[in-house]
Amino acid sequence: MASVVPDRLHGRLAALARFGALPGGGVTRPCWSPPHEAARAWLLDEIAGAGLRAWVDPAGNVFGGLGIDTFSGERPVVLTGSHIDTVPEGGMLDGALGVIAGLECVQAIHEAKAAPRRPLIVAAWSDEEGRYGSLFGSRAFCGNLDATRIPDMAAADGERLVDAMARAGFDAGRAPLARAPAGAVAAYVELHIEQGARLEEAGIPIGVVDSIVGVRRARVVFHGQADHAGTTPMARRRDAFLAAAEYALRARDLVVERGGERAVTNVGVAHVHPGVSNIVPGRAELVHEMRCPEADTLEALDGACEGLAREIAAKRGVRAEVRRLSATAPVACAERIQRAVEEAARALGLPSRRLYSAAGHDAQNLALVADAGMIFIPSQGGRSHRVDEASDAAAIERGATVLLRTLLALAA
Amino acid sequence: MASVVPDRLHGRLAALARFGALPGGGVTRPCWSPPHEAARAWLLDEIAGAGLRAWVDPAGNVFGGLGIDTFSGERPVVLTGSHIDTVPEGGMLDGALGVIAGLECVQAIHEAKAAPRRPLIVAAWSDEEGRYGSLFGSRAFCGNLDATRIPDMAAADGERLVDAMARAGFDAGRAPLARAPAGAVAAYVELHIEQGARLEEAGIPIGVVDSIVGVRRARVVFHGQADHAGTTPMARRRDAFLAAAEYALRARDLVVERGGERAVTNVGVAHVHPGVSNIVPGRAELVHEMRCPEADTLEALDGACEGLAREIAAKRGVRAEVRRLSATAPVACAERIQRAVEEAARALGLPSRRLYSAAGHDAQNLALVADAGMIFIPSQGGRSHRVDEASDAAAIERGATVLLRTLLALAA
Repeated sequence: MASVVPDRLHGRLAALARFGALPGGGVTRPCWSPPHEAARAWLLDEIAGAGLRAWVDPAGNVFGGLGIDTFSGERPVVLTGSHIDTVPEGGMLDGALGVIAGLECVQAIHEAKAAPRRPLIVAAWSDEEGRYGSLFGSRAFCGNLDATRIPDMAAADGERLVDAMARAGFDAGRAPLARAPAGAVAAYVELHIEQGARLEEAGIPIGVVDSIVGVRRARVVFHGQADHAGTTPMARRRDAFLAAAEYALRARDLVVERGGERAVTNVGVAHVHPGVSNIVPGRAELVHEMRCPEADTLEALDGACEGLAREIAAKRGVRAEVRRLSATAPVACAERIQRAVEEAARALGLPSRRLYSAAGHDAQNLALVADAGMIFIPSQGGRSHRVDEASDAAAIERGATVLLRTLLALAA
Repeated sequence: MASVVPDRLHGRLAALARFGALPGGGVTRPCWSPPHEAARAWLLDEIAGAGLRAWVDPAGNVFGGLGIDTFSGERPVVLTGSHIDTVPEGGMLDGALGVIAGLECVQAIHEAKAAPRRPLIVAAWSDEEGRYGSLFGSRAFCGNLDATRIPDMAAADGERLVDAMARAGFDAGRAPLARAPAGAVAAYVELHIEQGARLEEAGIPIGVVDSIVGVRRARVVFHGQADHAGTTPMARRRDAFLAAAEYALRARDLVVERGGERAVTNVGVAHVHPGVSNIVPGRAELVHEMRCPEADTLEALDGACEGLAREIAAKRGVRAEVRRLSATAPVACAERIQRAVEEAARALGLPSRRLYSAAGHDAQNLALVADAGMIFIPSQGGRSHRVDEASDAAAIERGATVLLRTLLALAA
């Protein structure tokens, strides 16, 4: 019977972590960057070396197929995977685990000559972390990439997606061609670290994801008046940064008070213009993000924060501009995938618990075109998007084994 | 008798404004930048064309001497001038007025063969706006440049002074050699726009500066914890940017409440690390500036703000690091210079008023080695450090004429 080979699994995780490795630990490997493209080449070699068909689609998604090298409505596949890009100063498991464990499972099934009814494919989706656009690869695969917006897609530092993809040898304009034919995916299941502390604190080894938060991101810009920071009387200043500072603090409180326990918020980007010490800030830009698994709550918070920006601007004599950068809706995971994961865990004697995902994942796109679900394993200290992100070796092996059994059940 | 030639004065102001001119008006001409160095070359040509001796010292200060091309304790000079560098997106008068009007006055005295007792020199001081270090050129000239700190001097964007000067053909290590011999300057008087609205609102054409604010700048850094912005519970976050936001708002209120009418404050620089939307800020850096003409008040505010940073950090579970970037003490202008300016204005039938300067100026360094003072003319709407900075043509001519009479009186 097919089984996961722990040494190979851990060895590949360590090998992948060397692409974009930081001196003190952790990884910076944004999509389309040189370390990411080197990791892609390595992954394609590993897939081929495992005896699987390896290919890349126009959105840069990497696939490894067991006896199949294309998607079609005639042969619905059981798909697994995640992503190999990371946030800046991220960890070695976020995304990588789902890809490497998925490869291990499909290879193990191949080597066991298990001959499941449905073809199996492992995927590495492009730019899940959204340097240029959140969940880019899985969005393209699921037909939700708006071709007209591609020329405008850019990183927070202004670098355009078309330029980044061109440097990596891709034509961004062709990315929408990555769309899979209708009915090509019978089921999708993704293994991921929890990135939170709920499983660890409860002592539960396997999380069965029942829903994934929706994420909204907006650029909130305050336009004030640049003035001499010495000679302009304090009462006459129209300081854009002070407006932004008040917004960051009050928007945080608003989301905590009105959003309930399952809503979170962050201001992770702030720029001040012209950005010199002796000029009153004339413009301040924030990127404000909110997440919630409940669509109505998310919508209400979004409206309330926009109102808050306008209220602060009016009070401070500046102008607020709120521009939506991205919005994903909360999604529910398929009941049959959840049951398959629970059954796989039970057969292995592993307790499991249903929980929602507080992070966005490629699975939320796949859920739009197929039955989709996720398996979580505990994250040490709940840490993620950090260089010290980690999970126990045994937890990783348990997760991969539950994934293997789930894939076999879904493909049977 | 010597008199200012208005067309030449305005013509040179317009000519200088073309170096680093912005498409919509205004100027960006930071010291050592290509536009600044082109302006320096132009200025040296103008000085020579005016029949004056032109030279540059190791700190990059430009001089135009009437019958003199060096500083010595044996021939004390009457000195005037200001600077030709600007803040980013600054105006065409801040600094430029004092240099061009000073050149006009010395040229007019030269052409009138007025033969004053003391030699006259017009100066353009390097990097008054402090891209790499506030009042750099006049600090070097007055012997207050610490040679050991030069290798570490850098712009807010990290560019080092030594590299910027090297590109412009200067050796930063030699800048302290610009120090003038003791007794070389008998008197210094600088014409400048007010950069505030007090003269305009009072309908007074000439301001006689009695003191100049001290300026303190500190880098205030909050060290928190970078975490996943979706999965980290709100209550467990140690968000460095929220601490910085609270500091900016509360430090502003503290200075306004405790500093009185003559203290001002600004946070003009803010950086968030790692600076991506889906990571809780692990580090946030501000540059906090305070100005006050009263030394005791400035000292007390400085201490109170450092305490505030620590209080906020403790409350929010982050760490505060406060590092002094620069500190200039408030200075008093020489009574005899103030009287000379008042007498010149009175002789011209122009009302004048004594006031303090809310901005730092090269005159505050000169005040440490000589009798120094300043003449202010009204700024339209009090605007400065802005592309629409302006003063009436007649106000400029009145200022230049008062400067001419003051220089003649001081040199007599």
